[in-house]
Amino acid sequence: MFKAVISDTRNWKSSIDAIASILDEGTFIIDSDGMHLRAMDPSQIAMLDFNLPASSFESFELDRPIDIGIDFAEMSKITKRVKAEDKIHLSLDKRLGMTFKGDTTRSFKIAVIDAHSSPPKEPQIEFTSSAKIPPAIIKEALKDAELVSNHVALSIDDGFNIACDGDTGSVEIRLPEEKLLSLEKKSASRAVFSLDHLNNILKEAEPPSIVQVKLRTDAPLQISYSIGDSKLVYYLAPRIESM
Amino acid sequence: MFKAVISDTRNWKSSIDAIASILDEGTFIIDSDGMHLRAMDPSQIAMLDFNLPASSFESFELDRPIDIGIDFAEMSKITKRVKAEDKIHLSLDKRLGMTFKGDTTRSFKIAVIDAHSSPPKEPQIEFTSSAKIPPAIIKEALKDAELVSNHVALSIDDGFNIACDGDTGSVEIRLPEEKLLSLEKKSASRAVFSLDHLNNILKEAEPPSIVQVKLRTDAPLQISYSIGDSKLVYYLAPRIESM
Amino acid sequence: MFKAVISDTRNWKSSIDAIASILDEGTFIIDSDGMHLRAMDPSQIAMLDFNLPASSFESFELDRPIDIGIDFAEMSKITKRVKAEDKIHLSLDKRLGMTFKGDTTRSFKIAVIDAHSSPPKEPQIEFTSSAKIPPAIIKEALKDAELVSNHVALSIDDGFNIACDGDTGSVEIRLPEEKLLSLEKKSASRAVFSLDHLNNILKEAEPPSIVQVKLRTDAPLQISYSIGDSKLVYYLAPRIESM
Repeated sequence: MFKAVISDTRNWKSSIDAIASILDEGTFIIDSDGMHLRAMDPSQIAMLDFNLPASSFESFELDRPIDIGIDFAEMSKITKRVKAEDKIHLSLDKRLGMTFKGDTTRSFKIAVIDAHSSPPKEPQIEFTSSAKIPPAIIKEALKDAELVSNHVALSIDDGFNIACDGDTGSVEIRLPEEKLLSLEKKSASRAVFSLDHLNNILKEAEPPSIVQVKLRTDAPLQISYSIGDSKLVYYLAPRIESM
Repeated sequence: MFKAVISDTRNWKSSIDAIASILDEGTFIIDSDGMHLRAMDPSQIAMLDFNLPASSFESFELDRPIDIGIDFAEMSKITKRVKAEDKIHLSLDKRLGMTFKGDTTRSFKIAVIDAHSSPPKEPQIEFTSSAKIPPAIIKEALKDAELVSNHVALSIDDGFNIACDGDTGSVEIRLPEEKLLSLEKKSASRAVFSLDHLNNILKEAEPPSIVQVKLRTDAPLQISYSIGDSKLVYYLAPRIESM
Repeated sequence: MFKAVISDTRNWKSSIDAIASILDEGTFIIDSDGMHLRAMDPSQIAMLDFNLPASSFESFELDRPIDIGIDFAEMSKITKRVKAEDKIHLSLDKRLGMTFKGDTTRSFKIAVIDAHSSPPKEPQIEFTSSAKIPPAIIKEALKDAELVSNHVALSIDDGFNIACDGDTGSVEIRLPEEKLLSLEKKSASRAVFSLDHLNNILKEAEPPSIVQVKLRTDAPLQISYSIGDSKLVYYLAPRIESM
C-alpha cells in the first residue's frame, strides 16, 4: 500500500521534468525515508541520484518499501497538466495513480514498467576543486558555448571557466571568484564535457537554488542542486578526445 | 447586389476561424434574415449549422437571396489580418470583396468557389441528457484526455464525465453538478467521440459564451455555443468501436 | 591594429541582423570614417550599402584601413547573445574578436573569411517619385500582400500603393498622402518586386526610424532607413514579368 499527497506541485513538476531530461525510464525506490532514484542515462555517460524526503509530502503512507518502474516521458506529459493550486494524490495498484484535486478532480493512471536493473553505484572521486554558481550564469554561459561547439571545457583555477573551440569560432567565459558564491581549490582542474548533457542536467536549476560543480582533471564532474526539497546529484563522464 | 458592414470584427474573425476549423469549404446562404451555413466536415462525421442574423451587421443590403461558395482556409487567412478597430465591408461581384477600413484601407478579394451541393438535413435526435459547461473547463479536460488517447467517452449521470483509456495510461475527469451551469437528465447517456473533432468544434468557444452538450447513448452529440451574435450548432457522430 | 568599443549594443545587434537578412557574407571596409559595406545579395537582385560612422563608437582605434570578410550568419548568432547592458569590444588578429563585457566577460572569436571581391558600384537611377512611410505601415501592408502572392506592385501616384494578385485572391492597400510623412512625385511610378526581398530589407526597420522608398517605373527601387547611427541604403531590382 502506497498513498501520498503532494502540495508543492510546482517543485514536483520541475523535479519530474529534471529527471525526464536525463532518463527515459527508471525505478523509484520508495521507503519510509521518501522517494529515491539512481540511474544512468541511455548513453551511459551521465548518472542521476535523486532524493525527495518523506517529510516533504503533505501525507505519506507506505506499509513496506516498494519499487515503481516509470516511463518518465509519460509521467512528465501528465505532470505538466497539474495546476499550481491542485494537490497531487499518488497511489499504486497495478498502475500508478495521479489524481489532481483542485477546482476539478482529474484522475490519471500510467502503466508501471519493468525497469528492474539494480541501481548503479555512486562513483567515488576525489574532486580537486569546487565552485558554487548562480544557475542563470552557468546556463547562459553554456548557451554562449553552444554557438560554436557541442562540447565544452570546464575548468577551475582562480575562477570558474568555460571555453570551447569550433570550426567557425571560439568562446571563452571567465567567472572570477567574486562572481561565484564559493570557490575551493586543492589544485587547478579541467575536463571536457558534452554540452547537450550539461544543458539537460541544468535544465531545471533555478533560483533560489545554487549549482555546485565539482571537478577533477579528466575525471567525471559532479553537479548538484535542489528543486524545493528534492536533491539532485549528477555525475557526467568527460569526453576523452583532446580539445 | 450584396453589401454589408461588420463592426464587431473580433467576433467575425472568431466565427470564420470556428467554421474553418471544421470545414474546408462551404456555401453561405445569405437572405434577408442574415447569413446561414450548414455543412458536413470532409470526414462526414461532423456537421456545423451556423447562423448570423442580419441585425448584427452595421449595415446589410441585399436585393435577393444569394449563395456564396467559400474556401474557408483562404477566408480565415485574410480575416486574421483585420485589426480590432477596422470595419469590414463585404461586397460581391465575381469575387467576394472584403475591405478593411480603419487607419488604412486594405482591400482583399477572394475567388467564389462552386460548392453547390444542397445543405444536409439537421439530424433529429431525442437527446436524453444535457449539460451547460464553462468553455475553459471542457477544453482543459479534453487536453488532459489527449495525453493518452485520440478518442474520449463523454457521459452524463450525476455529473458530466470525460474518460479515456490508452496504451500508456488512462484519464478520468468527473464534473459534479455543482461545477456545471445546468444539468438535465432523462436517463444516463454515454458515447465515444473523436478528440480531434471535439477540439476543432470547441476551438473558438470562449467566455462569456457557454457550451451546451446534449447526449444520447451511442448517438451523435450536439454541441452549441455563441460567438457574439453568431449561433453555432454542431453534431458529431460517435465512434462505433467499443471502448 | 583595430580596436573599437560599442556601447549602443541594441542598435549594433539590429544592424548585424539587418545585414544578415540580405547577405550570407561580405567584407567590412574599416577606415578612419567608420565601417562600410556594400554588397549584392546571393541572388544578385538586391544591393545593400551600409555605413556606421566612427563617431558612433565609444572608442575607435585603427592604424590603417582594413578589410574584414564576415560570415554574417555566424556573426549574427553571436551578436544575439549580447545583453543590453554589455559593451562590445571588437578586435582583430587572425580572427575577429568580440568580447562582451558586462556582469560577466564573454569572449568570442570568429573566423575572418576571404570575401575579397571589389564592392559593386552604387546604381545611378533618376527616381521619379519618393515617399516616407512609418515602418509599421509598410511592413503590415506587405504581410497583407503575402496572403495571396510572392510579389507585389509598389506604385506612387496621389499616394503610396501596394497591390498584388494571386491565384486565390487579390490585395490592394492605398496610403493617401495624409498617411505618409512625405510624398514627392515628378511622375507616377510603378514596378513589381519580390515580397521576400522586401520583407528581408525591412526586417529591422523600426520606429523612430522612417522608411524612404524611391521609385521609377520598371526600374530598381531604393529603400533607406537608419538603425541608430547606422545608415542602410538598399536597391532592389524589379521583376520583369508583367503583372
